[in-house]
Amino acid sequence: MSAIAPTPRTTLVRRPERGTHERAVVNAILDEALICHVGFVMDGQPFVLPTTHARIDDRLYVHGSAGGRMLRTLRQAIPVCVTVTLLDGLVLARSAFHHSMNYRSVLILGAAREVREEAEKRRAFCALVDHVVAGRSGEVRGASDLELKATSVLCLPIEEASAKVRTGPPLDDEEDYTLPHWAGVIPLALQAQTALADSRLPAGIPVPASVARYRRPGR
Amino acid sequence: MSAIAPTPRTTLVRRPERGTHERAVVNAILDEALICHVGFVMDGQPFVLPTTHARIDDRLYVHGSAGGRMLRTLRQAIPVCVTVTLLDGLVLARSAFHHSMNYRSVLILGAAREVREEAEKRRAFCALVDHVVAGRSGEVRGASDLELKATSVLCLPIEEASAKVRTGPPLDDEEDYTLPHWAGVIPLALQAQTALADSRLPAGIPVPASVARYRRPGR
Repeated sequence: MSAIAPTPRTTLVRRPERGTHERAVVNAILDEALICHVGFVMDGQPFVLPTTHARIDDRLYVHGSAGGRMLRTLRQAIPVCVTVTLLDGLVLARSAFHHSMNYRSVLILGAAREVREEAEKRRAFCALVDHVVAGRSGEVRGASDLELKATSVLCLPIEEASAKVRTGPPLDDEEDYTLPHWAGVIPLALQAQTALADSRLPAGIPVPASVARYRRPGR
Repeated sequence: MSAIAPTPRTTLVRRPERGTHERAVVNAILDEALICHVGFVMDGQPFVLPTTHARIDDRLYVHGSAGGRMLRTLRQAIPVCVTVTLLDGLVLARSAFHHSMNYRSVLILGAAREVREEAEKRRAFCALVDHVVAGRSGEVRGASDLELKATSVLCLPIEEASAKVRTGPPLDDEEDYTLPHWAGVIPLALQAQTALADSRLPAGIPVPASVARYRRPGR
């Protein structure tokens, strides 16, 4: 699979060995993460807001209310940074200094455009729902024209982007390996628990397989 | 407990009922989250980077390498936005439009200052380690003077901040409640798994209670 062209802005200054521009790595992180953090600037002040996203090919779609502050601002095609982070473990070293985390993150820079064409907007809207639970958009009432209008969908090309990944055990200073302190990793996993049916659900509606079998990707 | 004074920048435009400025709510979210996303601007481009944080009273400490891009930039006391998000569940509605997530997030705006005073820096450094595993800083080799110098610690006062919380079942349009589509919530929880000892750990070093009993807060 191809690599994304590195730029000075997406090249790691420190620990370059943790960085990659491989599209397969970037895509896998974007697809696993349930939320992203969108950064943008208003009157010189950066804002970072969490929201949901979905990827179609080399494009990231982000959605929000048409009336919300973020979407009203981003619609102007201003520079944006979308960051996605998956936390995989706590890295406990023999020294306080070398404590760390195992994680996988992606950073995308660019300008977002508002999706106005209806077919693309519907496709992105379905992708956003299916990103949460695969197949879900086919199991519920689809968006009406009015609902589609009330939603803003932004598209950010995944052109200037990089991933950063830390895995493995703590890396202590060589002379610290004889210290009598325990060291290792506490793995972390975001896990789905048993689905709770809405209390207003009429009797006799079964839990669909997409929900009953819902699992987060294992590490 | 006191409330943080709202400002136009921390007042929700949409769904104000989900927002709060209560310090107890803001603090609980900051304390539970293992990482934050730091937003800052360089040459007009926003950057959003994940990092670890710790709170002491009404101050948030963020740390990074003294040579890293983020710390070198933030040291200039430029405007920053720190956002913390905890994901609690997937909200599956009867309509695609009303799909949502249950989450708790905090947004802090301000300018960070670099911590230069050694006693405060050591205190913050220990808090950053203990934020990951309570009591950990007392169980490992403390930071040397050189290590402390190699680390930058930034302090952001929690003065302009707000929390946003969504909980509970999906909220469908009234006429959709009779639809034959399953609706409910899939709860999500970040869970700690059994700790993995470093392969270079000498024999006979027991797992400390802080690690063996490590649990993420339950919801």
